[in-house]
Amino acid sequence: MSFDITAVVNIMGLAAVAVFAISGALDAARQKMDILGFMLIGTATGIGGGTLRDVLLGNVPVFWIREPVWILICLVASAVTYFIAPKLASRSRTLIWMDAVGLALFAVVGTEIALEFGTSSLIAICMGVMTATFGGIARDVLCGSNLTLMNEELYITTALAGSVVYLLLNSFNLPNSYDLIGGFLVAFILRALAIQFHLKLPNPHRKD
Amino acid sequence: MSFDITAVVNIMGLAAVAVFAISGALDAARQKMDILGFMLIGTATGIGGGTLRDVLLGNVPVFWIREPVWILICLVASAVTYFIAPKLASRSRTLIWMDAVGLALFAVVGTEIALEFGTSSLIAICMGVMTATFGGIARDVLCGSNLTLMNEELYITTALAGSVVYLLLNSFNLPNSYDLIGGFLVAFILRALAIQFHLKLPNPHRKD
Amino acid sequence: MSFDITAVVNIMGLAAVAVFAISGALDAARQKMDILGFMLIGTATGIGGGTLRDVLLGNVPVFWIREPVWILICLVASAVTYFIAPKLASRSRTLIWMDAVGLALFAVVGTEIALEFGTSSLIAICMGVMTATFGGIARDVLCGSNLTLMNEELYITTALAGSVVYLLLNSFNLPNSYDLIGGFLVAFILRALAIQFHLKLPNPHRKD
Repeated sequence: MSFDITAVVNIMGLAAVAVFAISGALDAARQKMDILGFMLIGTATGIGGGTLRDVLLGNVPVFWIREPVWILICLVASAVTYFIAPKLASRSRTLIWMDAVGLALFAVVGTEIALEFGTSSLIAICMGVMTATFGGIARDVLCGSNLTLMNEELYITTALAGSVVYLLLNSFNLPNSYDLIGGFLVAFILRALAIQFHLKLPNPHRKD
Repeated sequence: MSFDITAVVNIMGLAAVAVFAISGALDAARQKMDILGFMLIGTATGIGGGTLRDVLLGNVPVFWIREPVWILICLVASAVTYFIAPKLASRSRTLIWMDAVGLALFAVVGTEIALEFGTSSLIAICMGVMTATFGGIARDVLCGSNLTLMNEELYITTALAGSVVYLLLNSFNLPNSYDLIGGFLVAFILRALAIQFHLKLPNPHRKD
Repeated sequence: MSFDITAVVNIMGLAAVAVFAISGALDAARQKMDILGFMLIGTATGIGGGTLRDVLLGNVPVFWIREPVWILICLVASAVTYFIAPKLASRSRTLIWMDAVGLALFAVVGTEIALEFGTSSLIAICMGVMTATFGGIARDVLCGSNLTLMNEELYITTALAGSVVYLLLNSFNLPNSYDLIGGFLVAFILRALAIQFHLKLPNPHRKD
C-alpha cells in the first residue's frame, strides 16, 4: 500500500479551513451577529488567505470557485458554530491546537502552489505566509478588531519557518511529500512550543 | 413591440449603483470628508460588490474598466451628493427603498454572471450575495464603522432569497427574463416586508 | 549621451515604495508591533496601490511577483525602520517630502500602465489615483486608523492633477518622457505648495 500524501493534505486542509471558519464565527458570536453574519465572517476567515494568494498569482477563478467543497465546509462549519458557540468557547484550547495545524499546513501548501506557478523563492515564501495569515486579518478587519496575529505567540514567525523549511527541502529534489511533511512539522512544533511557553519575538517598542 | 429586459436591467442597474454610491457618500458626509473623499467612498460602495465578483471569477479587466459608465455614474452621484447631502439625509426613506431595488437587482445579476462563467449553483449564489453586499461592507470598512448589513432587516437574507429563486427559475429553462424578474421580485418584496415590519432573523446571541 | 527616463523612473519608483513602506512601518511602531508586524504593514503600504491596479486590470501575476525587487525593498525598508523608528520619527519632515515624490510618481506611472492596457482616459485617471493612494488606505485599514489621506493637504487632488496632466501631454504625441515628467512635476509642485501653505479643499461639512 502506497502512502497517499495528497489525500492526507486534502483532509488536513479541509479540517484546517473548518477551524479557521470556526474561529471567524466565534468572533461573529462576540459581535452578536445573526447566522448569516456567522457564515459571512467564518467563510471570509476560512478562505481569505488562499483567495488572496490566487488573485495575486492570477490563479483564477480562485480555488473555491473551482472546487466548491472548500467554501461549503466553511459555510457549514460557521453555521454549526452558530448553534454551539457557547460550548465551543469552552473548548478554546482545542481550537488553538487545530488552528496551529491549519497555520502550518496553509503555509507549506501556499508556498507549494506559488512555486508551481514559477515564482521566485522570495515570492513563494510571501505567498505561504499570506495564505496562512490573511484569513485571520480579513476576520479582524471585518469585525473592527485589532490584528490578533500581532499578539499571538510567534504566529507569523511560524508560517515563515514552515515556508522556508519547505523551500529548503524542496531544493534537494526529495520526493514531494518530504518537503511538505518537513515544513509542516517544523511550523507546527514551533507554534506548539510558542503556545506552551508563551514565546514571542523580542519587542523593544513595547514595554510590558 | 418586444419587451427588452436587457435595457431594463441596465437602467435599473445604473440607478442601483447610483443609490449605493449615494449611501456611501452620505457616510463620507458623516465623516466630514471633502468632495474627493465623497467620491472615493461613494464609488467604492457603488462598484465594490461587482468588482470583487469579477476579480474572484477572473472576469478581468473588471466590469467598470470595460464599461466606464458604471464608475462614471458613481463619481457623478457621489459628487452631487456632496452638494446636497443635507437635503438627501431628510430623504432617507426614499434612499432605503432605492437601496432595496439595488440589493435585489445585484443579487440576481451577480448570480447570472457567475452562471455564465460556468460555476456551480452554490458558487453562483455566493457570487450573487457578494455582488449585492460587498459594496456596503467596503464602505463600512473604509469609514471604520460596524458592518451595517448586520443590523439591517433581512439584508443578506434578501440577497440570498433573490439568488436562490433566480437559480430555481433558471433551472426550468424559462426564457431569460422570467428568472431575472422572479428573483428580483421575491428579493425586493421580502426586503420591503422586512423594512415595513422590522423583520430580523432570530438571534439568541443578542438579548434585546 | 541619451537621457534614460526609464532608469530614472525605476530608481525613483524604488525610492517611492521604500518611503511608503517606511510610513507604514512607522504606523506599526505606533501600534507597538514586532518586526514581522512592521514588515507586514510596511509592505502592504508600499505595494498596495500597484497591486490593486494590477488585479483590477487583470495584469497578473501582479507586478511584484513578476519583479520581486519591489517587495524586497519594502521588506528591507520596513525591517530597517524597526531598528531606527525613533530616529525616523524626528525626520518626519524629510519623510513627508519623500512621500510627495512617491505620490506624484505613482499617479503618473499608474496612469501610464492603465493606458498601455488600452483603458479609456477616465479609467486611466482612476487607476493613477488608486495606485498613488491605495497603499495608504490599506495601511490605515490594517491599523484601524481613520483614513489619513482625508486630512492631508490636497493628497488625492495631487494624484488627480498629476494623472490629468500626464493624459493631456500624452495626447499631444510628445516623446514618452515629457508626459511623465510634466505630470510628475505638476503633482509634486502642487503637493509641495499644499504642504507649505496648508492648502485643503473647501469643506462646508466641516466647521473648523
